Amino acid sequence: MNQPYPSSLLESAVNEFAKLPGIGRKTALRFVLHLLRQDDSHVESFTNAILTLKKEIKYCSSCHNISDSEICNICSDLSRDPSVVCVVENIKDVMAIENTSQYKGQYHVLGGIISPIDGIGPSDVEISSLIDRVKTKNVKEVVLALNATMEGDTTNFYIYRKLEPLHTKVSIIARGVSIGNEIEYTDEVTLGRSILNRTPFDESYKL
Amino acid sequence: MNQPYPSSLLESAVNEFAKLPGIGRKTALRFVLHLLRQDDSHVESFTNAILTLKKEIKYCSSCHNISDSEICNICSDLSRDPSVVCVVENIKDVMAIENTSQYKGQYHVLGGIISPIDGIGPSDVEISSLIDRVKTKNVKEVVLALNATMEGDTTNFYIYRKLEPLHTKVSIIARGVSIGNEIEYTDEVTLGRSILNRTPFDESYKL
Repeated sequence: MNQPYPSSLLESAVNEFAKLPGIGRKTALRFVLHLLRQDDSHVESFTNAILTLKKEIKYCSSCHNISDSEICNICSDLSRDPSVVCVVENIKDVMAIENTSQYKGQYHVLGGIISPIDGIGPSDVEISSLIDRVKTKNVKEVVLALNATMEGDTTNFYIYRKLEPLHTKVSIIARGVSIGNEIEYTDEVTLGRSILNRTPFDESYKL
Repeated sequence: MNQPYPSSLLESAVNEFAKLPGIGRKTALRFVLHLLRQDDSHVESFTNAILTLKKEIKYCSSCHNISDSEICNICSDLSRDPSVVCVVENIKDVMAIENTSQYKGQYHVLGGIISPIDGIGPSDVEISSLIDRVKTKNVKEVVLALNATMEGDTTNFYIYRKLEPLHTKVSIIARGVSIGNEIEYTDEVTLGRSILNRTPFDESYKL
């Protein structure tokens, strides 16, 4: 539907909202008209929250999780075991695993996974910082918790090869996660079980 | 799902997005993480578009449609007939009707409809300005194009009573079987109305 916008200001706001993932122009218009009906203070707190986040957000220097400070809440939590490091793709995966309350170690957020088809190689994700961390921080176990996809598996094997010379225990969350599914959308019981039942990783491993 | 946000900045941005209509916290998080991945300039143009719209948007002083100027594009378009005024609830209805390219008169945007259950009375919507406009601007026909709901009908009748002393022609958009719909599945009120309001048929008739 070719929308004849009555205002160019309206149109440019709709265009901006329509850039959000999964949002078309009709839904974008609904959002914009919703904001137009709100008080100025409401709209300002909306845009301020976004701008402040974008300007002041930090990434934990240890695990690369999103954080308000130099070291994130999880890495600075003394009740957690720093010798176990769970490798995840992104912060949504951290949140999903935290939500199960089954894991008391730390994380390492790769910020992506190896995907040759998308031009993402090992140097584009936080793998070398993971290896450094294992070398220097007395990490006893690395738990691989990437999506059960081709790319996840490629990344698992790459990390495994890099860690092999260090003789660190490498485990992988149990494939209670259905093949082809993503961590973020797995129900918490299955996900929690898959962390408890992590199994040793070696060359015989297949999806 | 109780999300343990790793950052309070992240959480407050998610909270703001979750206030948008139809958006839950998971989708809000997806939007926020999307914006975090964008350049600063992209995020600024997003928030600027919203703030500029909110600050500079005007409502046409004649029809109350959203506009960049004092008088909207439609009201200032000399090729349109100012003696025919179509009454709609909101600007999305203007856009929907404009999109049909079938209407060449002007509009009057009520900004709501009478809904006693929601505490919206005649003085909360732009009805008195409509009556003034009909009195002073030589309006020959008022076309009622409100939703075919209880509230729409209440508002139609209220406007009709107010216009009665002025002897202005009042019409209402046809209600009947939607194009493409099957008789069998049309509700009986609509079907009954479509029989009472049957229109002459001849060779020139097209869907």
